[in-house]
Amino acid sequence: MTKYVYDFAEGNKDMKDLLGGKGANLSEMTLIGLPVPPGFVITTEACQTYLATGDVPDELAAEVTEHLQALEAQMGKRLGDADDPLLVSVRSGAKFSMPGMMDTVLNIGLNDQSVEGLAKQSGNQRFAWDSYRRLVQMFGKTVLGVDGDLFEHAIDAAKDAKGTEDDLDLGEADLRALVEQFKGIVQSETGSPFPQEPRAQMDFAVKAVFDSWNGDRARLYRRQERIPADLGTAVNVCSMVFGNMSMDSGTGVAFTRDPGSGSQGIYGDYLQNAQGEDVVAGIRNTLPLQDLEGLDKASYDELLGIMATLEHHYRDLCDIEFTIERGKLWMLQTRVGKRTAGAAFRIATQLVDEGLIDLDEALGRVTGAQLAQLMFPAFGDAASAKKLTKGMNASPGAAVGKAVFSSETAAEWAARGEDVILVRRETNPDDLVGMIAARGILTSRGGKTSHAAVVARGMGKTCVCGAEELDVDVAAKQIRLKDGSTVEEGDVLSIDGTSGAVFLGEVPVTPSPVVQYFEGELDDHDDHDDLVAAVDRLVQHADGARRLAVRANADTPEDAQRARRFGAAGIGLCRTEHMFLGDRRQLVETLVLAEGPDEQEAALAALLPLQREDFLGILRAMDGLPVTVRLIDPPLHEFLPDLTELSVEVAVAEATGKDVPEQQRTLLDAVRRLHEQNPMLGLRGVRLGLVIPGLFALQVRAIAEAAKALQEEGLDPRPEIMVPLVGAVQELEVVREEAERILAEVGVSAPIGTMIEVPRAALTAGQIAEAAEFFSFGTNDLTQMGWGFSRDDVEASFFSRYLDLGVFGVSPFESLDRDGIGRLVRIAVEEGRATRPDLHLGVCGEHGGDPDSVHFFHDAGLDYVSCSPFRVPVARLEAGRAALEGDSGDTR
Amino acid sequence: MTKYVYDFAEGNKDMKDLLGGKGANLSEMTLIGLPVPPGFVITTEACQTYLATGDVPDELAAEVTEHLQALEAQMGKRLGDADDPLLVSVRSGAKFSMPGMMDTVLNIGLNDQSVEGLAKQSGNQRFAWDSYRRLVQMFGKTVLGVDGDLFEHAIDAAKDAKGTEDDLDLGEADLRALVEQFKGIVQSETGSPFPQEPRAQMDFAVKAVFDSWNGDRARLYRRQERIPADLGTAVNVCSMVFGNMSMDSGTGVAFTRDPGSGSQGIYGDYLQNAQGEDVVAGIRNTLPLQDLEGLDKASYDELLGIMATLEHHYRDLCDIEFTIERGKLWMLQTRVGKRTAGAAFRIATQLVDEGLIDLDEALGRVTGAQLAQLMFPAFGDAASAKKLTKGMNASPGAAVGKAVFSSETAAEWAARGEDVILVRRETNPDDLVGMIAARGILTSRGGKTSHAAVVARGMGKTCVCGAEELDVDVAAKQIRLKDGSTVEEGDVLSIDGTSGAVFLGEVPVTPSPVVQYFEGELDDHDDHDDLVAAVDRLVQHADGARRLAVRANADTPEDAQRARRFGAAGIGLCRTEHMFLGDRRQLVETLVLAEGPDEQEAALAALLPLQREDFLGILRAMDGLPVTVRLIDPPLHEFLPDLTELSVEVAVAEATGKDVPEQQRTLLDAVRRLHEQNPMLGLRGVRLGLVIPGLFALQVRAIAEAAKALQEEGLDPRPEIMVPLVGAVQELEVVREEAERILAEVGVSAPIGTMIEVPRAALTAGQIAEAAEFFSFGTNDLTQMGWGFSRDDVEASFFSRYLDLGVFGVSPFESLDRDGIGRLVRIAVEEGRATRPDLHLGVCGEHGGDPDSVHFFHDAGLDYVSCSPFRVPVARLEAGRAALEGDSGDTR
Repeated sequence: MTKYVYDFAEGNKDMKDLLGGKGANLSEMTLIGLPVPPGFVITTEACQTYLATGDVPDELAAEVTEHLQALEAQMGKRLGDADDPLLVSVRSGAKFSMPGMMDTVLNIGLNDQSVEGLAKQSGNQRFAWDSYRRLVQMFGKTVLGVDGDLFEHAIDAAKDAKGTEDDLDLGEADLRALVEQFKGIVQSETGSPFPQEPRAQMDFAVKAVFDSWNGDRARLYRRQERIPADLGTAVNVCSMVFGNMSMDSGTGVAFTRDPGSGSQGIYGDYLQNAQGEDVVAGIRNTLPLQDLEGLDKASYDELLGIMATLEHHYRDLCDIEFTIERGKLWMLQTRVGKRTAGAAFRIATQLVDEGLIDLDEALGRVTGAQLAQLMFPAFGDAASAKKLTKGMNASPGAAVGKAVFSSETAAEWAARGEDVILVRRETNPDDLVGMIAARGILTSRGGKTSHAAVVARGMGKTCVCGAEELDVDVAAKQIRLKDGSTVEEGDVLSIDGTSGAVFLGEVPVTPSPVVQYFEGELDDHDDHDDLVAAVDRLVQHADGARRLAVRANADTPEDAQRARRFGAAGIGLCRTEHMFLGDRRQLVETLVLAEGPDEQEAALAALLPLQREDFLGILRAMDGLPVTVRLIDPPLHEFLPDLTELSVEVAVAEATGKDVPEQQRTLLDAVRRLHEQNPMLGLRGVRLGLVIPGLFALQVRAIAEAAKALQEEGLDPRPEIMVPLVGAVQELEVVREEAERILAEVGVSAPIGTMIEVPRAALTAGQIAEAAEFFSFGTNDLTQMGWGFSRDDVEASFFSRYLDLGVFGVSPFESLDRDGIGRLVRIAVEEGRATRPDLHLGVCGEHGGDPDSVHFFHDAGLDYVSCSPFRVPVARLEAGRAALEGDSGDTR
Repeated sequence: MTKYVYDFAEGNKDMKDLLGGKGANLSEMTLIGLPVPPGFVITTEACQTYLATGDVPDELAAEVTEHLQALEAQMGKRLGDADDPLLVSVRSGAKFSMPGMMDTVLNIGLNDQSVEGLAKQSGNQRFAWDSYRRLVQMFGKTVLGVDGDLFEHAIDAAKDAKGTEDDLDLGEADLRALVEQFKGIVQSETGSPFPQEPRAQMDFAVKAVFDSWNGDRARLYRRQERIPADLGTAVNVCSMVFGNMSMDSGTGVAFTRDPGSGSQGIYGDYLQNAQGEDVVAGIRNTLPLQDLEGLDKASYDELLGIMATLEHHYRDLCDIEFTIERGKLWMLQTRVGKRTAGAAFRIATQLVDEGLIDLDEALGRVTGAQLAQLMFPAFGDAASAKKLTKGMNASPGAAVGKAVFSSETAAEWAARGEDVILVRRETNPDDLVGMIAARGILTSRGGKTSHAAVVARGMGKTCVCGAEELDVDVAAKQIRLKDGSTVEEGDVLSIDGTSGAVFLGEVPVTPSPVVQYFEGELDDHDDHDDLVAAVDRLVQHADGARRLAVRANADTPEDAQRARRFGAAGIGLCRTEHMFLGDRRQLVETLVLAEGPDEQEAALAALLPLQREDFLGILRAMDGLPVTVRLIDPPLHEFLPDLTELSVEVAVAEATGKDVPEQQRTLLDAVRRLHEQNPMLGLRGVRLGLVIPGLFALQVRAIAEAAKALQEEGLDPRPEIMVPLVGAVQELEVVREEAERILAEVGVSAPIGTMIEVPRAALTAGQIAEAAEFFSFGTNDLTQMGWGFSRDDVEASFFSRYLDLGVFGVSPFESLDRDGIGRLVRIAVEEGRATRPDLHLGVCGEHGGDPDSVHFFHDAGLDYVSCSPFRVPVARLEAGRAALEGDSGDTR
């Protein structure tokens, strides 16, 4: 028979699936002899049955009764006893911590009789009635769904009547009256009286916890975080202890190390004569935990001992909730604590040095996302500026600029060289131009999936959103603050996208010490010694563990050199587009406007020596390492003026009788002819190479001649030739034939491969591998074409809506969509290797530097990832973690 | 041990894989006792070994020797014998007839000695030396690769010297001299003498046939026709018989029925004292086959008997080549003959009536492509016009209009209501506008994969290309004809895209009797009685056999009624886009320009009654049959003016000091805001529905209310609601939830399903099926996104190049790409059904009416195809053929 209820003494920390995180940790603490108020856990399986059938399992009532009786026996009290009642809390607790689920109902077991027993036992009438008041209020709101404002208004009215603003001024009589009033509210709102039967209270609360699993916010959160919908939650029933019973009672939280910096020591807060919710409400100031030593040395010493025990037991920083009831210490919760990115690296290496964990485990304690955070510039000393507020840390980084309130102004001011911060209540697609122009974006509304947040992250631009304390008045071009002061257009703001902080005035921006370390620029780094050392140690360990090689995307010798400093094992994507810009635009124009093959050939011939110089530079910088050169990809019209602008220019000149040079007319004709409805799906990549004779040949020759020249200098250039946008093996065969001929003529050799960026390429990878020595997944285009949306067009127009609806939890351009695009990758890997077992496989889309995606690419069996130079350390770290974790999937 | 050589007496017609088509049929005729000149076949396996290793199999020489000796014994002659030589022909013959492969070398076995023996035996010196001349010429050109013009020039010089233009005026002495000259050419061009050893001649020729398998044109043809590259060709070695030996010799071709009309009877041509190549060269006029009766009654009677035998044996129209040598009839080749579309239908049903085949087999003898041809209008009596020439039948149909020579003129004249034919030497992407404006396109250059042909087929526009006799002078705006006359701009041309004929003057266009029949318009149809009856009979038989249902794509009641007449079982795609055009454009503009939700709601509310009327009409027309309504798909800016045009308009007005109404400015702002780089990949389909509140709801309500009203009339409306562009199940879930609520409110029910047109939808079909009652594959978009090219942009710019390169054999928009896009369809079918076994599956892309694609959809297990009303009979026929053929694959 399935067992649906576990006493805390029956479980342990490894039973999170069945008991939830909270229940498993309470059980673990009980197991290792720590003072946990006795109680029991109703399992997630009971919840699953309830969710599937609408009823709790038949056996549950009897099991609960049995465990409740045991609890009553242990505590020497009975639930609802009029003389000396047992009170319990009922708390939700799923495997994953989940906002949006019901949290806690305290004081279950109080009713019109037992409240008197509590008063008698505690010798404190006010305490008893306040407890009862809290029960009716919490129960009414969270279990019965009564509007919480009704209760709050009643309390406010009672305080007004007394002429006070402080809850503590309400005495026993006031609280008795409030209880009556609250019971009336429950009656009128639900049509039934507040349940007096304690067991009924408990059963109601358990079902309410179960139901909260399917609340709107919980479902949305699960969709976004891809948490399975059928896990269900456990319910913790725990005997109550009271920190608000007397002055030798109290409640607190503690961390076994500093979660901010990672420093070793005792960190926490304590509040005398209070319950947890009072700490949260912030009514009174908490004391530093150290002060408890003076108040209650015995409890303090016991707590320190317990903290040491827990840290050794969990072998990690623990975060603890405790309560002292009349001098007796009780542990209410523990878990492995959250920490900042820097703390994560420091603590992980500290624990290695302390012998608690080994380096493999330490690597599992840090993430690429944390390392990425440490690589953003941060604000230094903010003394010179005034902190205005803290919003949501929507897109990391540090940005300083003058406040502007419209997209137009942002663009204008930026065009004349000013740094600006675009300030809006919220953004919409019309603001795109301004967002591009601004150093950072600040909004007063919207969360992490708002338009501003999504678009800023997509751009890699600093953003703080939802800073609700700021009253943004776009029309008046000012922000009004709570203190009545204002920020006007042109005032300097500093916004911290990593913390969410907003400052008035310029805060100096400090470069990331981690980046400085990799760049070899860290001269004086006392402050960061241990952080840099920790990062370096774990990245090095990852290097030893990983199977994936990490390359960088770089188009210039400078970027290539930086990539080497950051530890790249080669260039995975060298785009050649920029080589057709600048001074060379004229040659491209000649190529496009050429009247015949002779003119075209002349333009190509003029490009050859320039291209050769480009490749000489990058191959020299990466001497001895592979450099994958992608032949030209974008459509030719991208190198020409915009159709609408040019049309307007010519039309206006004509209308106003000005002379339109023949060349401009010819250019307009060409732009019109080359104009495409959907350039992303147009004449580009290999198609361009097949349609314009000599274009790819020019590039291949330039690569080959550059390599030959370096070989003659005694160097070791390793170019690889990559053909973009291949959808069918025949395309590649034609290009390959010509490229092989040219390589042979020049007398060098280079592998020839293809991007896999068109869905059909992945679907026919078995055929394509016949003509390719390597595949490089272009996951940007693969995502665009697989989903059928273009990043430029849709990210701004509907991604925030899609994130809100939970269509995806994160933009598929940020983190690879495993079900759809990932499936194409797996098909191509499997079938490509079936054709050519030594096929070399990599990825050069932006996903190559995304931690979660790196895990996927490891699992999928790729040989390397390639990402921007700055992301190389992140990818190295994640590739190591992926190798140690095996096919574990998600990193979040 | 593998047997590489088969005597004709050892093979049969079912051995095409091994003996090729020609060899198998020669064997079959030998087998059934027909007079075939003895010979043998070297198998395709010998060719395969040669192609793989570069050498013929070791055993081949001995086997050939053995069969050659047997042949010599049977004929009583020896190869190369100086007294009475055996001569043989060496002919290629693969499983599939393949242009571009070497065809034939005749007279192998002649040399300086044996030519005298042939002269003696034939008693005809001129014949013998002419035969030797032909051998050196054909061998030199096709086996040794000598430029054929060298030989032709020598012949011309000889004729000039004699002052004649006729080959027959060259006598024995001239031919002796030519042979010497030809041998000299071979010596100087190849560096070796013409091989005198007869066996060496034969072995050379066999290898040359093998090599021709990999000739450029043959490889291109195979790529285009998707014929495997490793099949290889067989080689037929056949003892020579001579139709040019005397006046009681001759050669001819015959058909057992008229391949043009399908009429029963004897059809063919005969040429006395001639060889096959003389017939081809057209030097002398052939006689109708019937005249043979008067010339050689015995051979004529024997031939008629053989034709009857063959038709009964092959149970189909046969096409025969024969030669009479001194009164003795020999069969040189037979095969099932090609025929016109009309003949195919007539013959198939005739054969049923004659008891030779059953209806199942008859259905296999006709194709949907043939039926489609019969459904185009055709030219009637061309007496009023002058036939100018015949080009390639590039895109079927009949078009009449005034000749114009530029895209601009075409557009201009068409705009003022003229029908025009665009005439160009060849077209390029600049001509697109003119091609759209024209009724038909005529070019003097380029084949069936030329730009003009590809684009015209894509547009369904009549096109004749490669009419090489026309000298098109675009600058002079005229066509110069061989007879010196000209066609000027504005002269009326009639072009027949089905036959390739080009007429000067207006040829009356006759509607298709098949279409008239389905439309119920066929009053007087004596001429077409049997054709219409044959079509009807086979389409009806297909209806009984097919598993696929056939629906139509129709957006209006008129189209829906036509679809019913053509036999559609419902509407598979009712687009709602047109319902936002015309008078309603203003409402869409209001919707787009709306300042807030109120204005938006008002615009939507105004659209509701209009939409309801739309659906009332179409549901009424399709009473009792399903109508799948697709919610609005295209992006909103498609309903607004073009950005460039509007920008120019406003800019010019401003520059010239004219007043720009505020509304126009607002409109321009909106157009700019909604402008997308890649609208195909933008805010459209379900995305639009999720971002504009109320849009889909309006449509669902209109459908529901229309259905409700019809139900109240006692009708049986069967709407189905289809959501476009879904890529993730969550999108569909959100729409579904709202739609179900509205349907319930109105009190009707309708299945809700989705298009599968985004690759990711196919890849996650198992998830999507959870929220869909049906899938309809949108193979146009699936092709665009799967290949990553937009039809609008690329068909004109590079498809002709791709067809030439053999990247595909046919545009993937015409016929479904099985390897890539077909794979997505199969994945979705399999995984969708795994989730929901009763998932209803159809296709509504244009491929739904393409014969080859219909076979694929049958194989893939779909429930229905939906196509344009005119294509419904084609799809019915092909669906029946597919069901009878089983999973046979290709229909070509």
